[in-house]
Amino acid sequence: MSLPSSAEPGRAGERPPRRVALLGSTGSIGRQTVDVLAAHPDAFRVVALATGSNAGLLADQAARLRPAAVALGDGSALAGLDLPPDTQRIGGVDALETLATRDDVDIVIVATGGVVSLRPVLAALRAGKVVATANKETLVAGGHLVMPQARALAAGVASLRPGDPYASPLAWLRPIDSEHSAIWQCLVGEDMAGVAALILTASGGPFLDASPAEMAAVTPEQALRHPTWTMGAKITIDSATLANKGLEVIEAHWLYDVDYDAIEVVIHPQSVVHSAVRFVDGSLKAQLGTPDMRLPIQYALTYPDRRPSPAAPPDLIATGRLDFRAPDEDRFPALRIARDAGRRGPRASAALIAADEVAVARFLEGSLDFAGIPRLLEAAVDRFGADGDAPDVDALVALDADVRGVFATGAFGARS
Amino acid sequence: MSLPSSAEPGRAGERPPRRVALLGSTGSIGRQTVDVLAAHPDAFRVVALATGSNAGLLADQAARLRPAAVALGDGSALAGLDLPPDTQRIGGVDALETLATRDDVDIVIVATGGVVSLRPVLAALRAGKVVATANKETLVAGGHLVMPQARALAAGVASLRPGDPYASPLAWLRPIDSEHSAIWQCLVGEDMAGVAALILTASGGPFLDASPAEMAAVTPEQALRHPTWTMGAKITIDSATLANKGLEVIEAHWLYDVDYDAIEVVIHPQSVVHSAVRFVDGSLKAQLGTPDMRLPIQYALTYPDRRPSPAAPPDLIATGRLDFRAPDEDRFPALRIARDAGRRGPRASAALIAADEVAVARFLEGSLDFAGIPRLLEAAVDRFGADGDAPDVDALVALDADVRGVFATGAFGARS
Repeated sequence: MSLPSSAEPGRAGERPPRRVALLGSTGSIGRQTVDVLAAHPDAFRVVALATGSNAGLLADQAARLRPAAVALGDGSALAGLDLPPDTQRIGGVDALETLATRDDVDIVIVATGGVVSLRPVLAALRAGKVVATANKETLVAGGHLVMPQARALAAGVASLRPGDPYASPLAWLRPIDSEHSAIWQCLVGEDMAGVAALILTASGGPFLDASPAEMAAVTPEQALRHPTWTMGAKITIDSATLANKGLEVIEAHWLYDVDYDAIEVVIHPQSVVHSAVRFVDGSLKAQLGTPDMRLPIQYALTYPDRRPSPAAPPDLIATGRLDFRAPDEDRFPALRIARDAGRRGPRASAALIAADEVAVARFLEGSLDFAGIPRLLEAAVDRFGADGDAPDVDALVALDADVRGVFATGAFGARS
Repeated sequence: MSLPSSAEPGRAGERPPRRVALLGSTGSIGRQTVDVLAAHPDAFRVVALATGSNAGLLADQAARLRPAAVALGDGSALAGLDLPPDTQRIGGVDALETLATRDDVDIVIVATGGVVSLRPVLAALRAGKVVATANKETLVAGGHLVMPQARALAAGVASLRPGDPYASPLAWLRPIDSEHSAIWQCLVGEDMAGVAALILTASGGPFLDASPAEMAAVTPEQALRHPTWTMGAKITIDSATLANKGLEVIEAHWLYDVDYDAIEVVIHPQSVVHSAVRFVDGSLKAQLGTPDMRLPIQYALTYPDRRPSPAAPPDLIATGRLDFRAPDEDRFPALRIARDAGRRGPRASAALIAADEVAVARFLEGSLDFAGIPRLLEAAVDRFGADGDAPDVDALVALDADVRGVFATGAFGARS
């Protein structure tokens, strides 16, 4: 058996530059990924860029990085895009899969939203590409589809080169997320047989110490003030409800193949410890960092190597103190609801993540109160998460639409 | 090239039991090592035991573990030792080297004291054995002698099986020490090229917040009250002066081949974070644990695997809070003196560790005050640490005797 070019051995600076396709290049993660890629021109070559509708920024990125091809979701604007002369335009509904499976691509970075991102993820893995994903549906809804692919690629390497960094499924399906990057970094060089539990940390959000009455009256403005990370509105509200941590529990289950009983959540208001792993011998390893997404993005690109990055290291002495406490699942029911959805299976998890998009959008527009968010999540999981089969991508896309159809408008959770 | 049996590949439970020689079986580390070995009879077989003078306990251990051979430093008691019928008695000045180099030994655990322990350590490495050492002189005085041996063994494995757990020098010279085990665990699977700094944590000892005047009046009783670890008198006093942390800085320099500028000390009163590594990308990995030496002992035996151990895992929520601050090198000059001795070279470091034994003994017996300990250390380093050559074991043993001869008695540091 021969190995895909993406598993070429060698150390940083010794191997040829990794050829990268970046899907979702103009969003927050996409833009930070461009910064990381541009900082290491000896290590990476950007072969393809894709985005949905931000034609102006895509053209700027293409001028800077000179990719072989670009795709733009807004097909009408594609022809008019101002591009370098050698850059190809890719259109059509399969554009992301076309870019992700190009022969000259080693790593596909998935920074696009939604369950439809599962199509390029699966196509890339089938083509033997490394996938680094910031897309939460990849694992929450599609963990049962993507992880067998990643494990098969890892097993292929292990049969030829045991102990190789690419003999791990995490080398093939790489998380771009501070918590999961932390766990991954703690697991490097460790055997999963030695893992007792994964410990996801959560800042606790702005309502960590709020009373139930205060939480009932929370406004979008209050919920958008995250204490430690500056992020988009959706993820900030998810941090306030702890729904994001619930989704990370489901991601952890699939990514690391660990039972839900062995995935713990600890509130850590300073957000310095990004997450941790407890081992069977009583040892615990934690990864610490400043709140800078460029660090997990870069690690997902440079693994197994590390390179200097613009992310400042954490200063234990300046920080002085790290606090930990148990999460309150009564005030933050989304955590319990997500864990329950994960246990029920992929349909329930897919319903949960679709419902969360709907719920947050409705909270921000004022048609749902803060306490209505977990109520909507639970209703969606109950309605759509009953059967425990293994839906394919088409079924997941249909389920996503069904959840939105039922909960995006109508009577559910109208402000009381 | 063929590999030593000690580097036999395979996973826990799949490979034959590792055959162990335990030197120093009746001291604190030795007794805890016996507990760990006895807890995993499928993984370890004790082939040899040695101790200095505790004939009664040695006989008990031999009855329990049925080793092939034992040695007793007190030769007059050896013949009368009550042993299982098949257990051989080994006497003579070379007894430890004889046991450490037996054909049927894979791992040598060194829990004996003093610079003379360098002889069995070096003999074992030359014979291709794994050495797990709790002996501080191994690295503080003999780092320049032992590490080239460990690196040569690792290079031999790397040439045949790159990425193998035994392709690391740490697989061959394993630290039994909570701080160095922590750093080792954080480095597993990482390339040293990615390491920016090592961060040794220190509890700060009982005088963390004492004024200079209070410290001048410290009694042995006060100094023996360690806030977090229960240990022997010598190491407890070393924790109170921070001399132990200074010695660990020197050990870290040799063990991990890291410059002194990149070895930091952070005061962490709760002793939960055992130490940490900062990487060039701004990521920091820390190992956390409860204060139980059975954890680092077991890891040194089971590496690269982990096995259940009686050590309780740390509970972040119950602990609640972890504090960090900078060490005060004015009130704890031993840290600065040790770092300086390390930079000067092996003679200065060997003088330091010999002087520290003398200083602590004199403090405990009342012939030196607390502030006299660092003064004696500095005087010994100044007197014996001038030249920067690479002394062999004989020269180190002679230097050790010279330091003791000058400082153990006489006028230096007489109580003022």
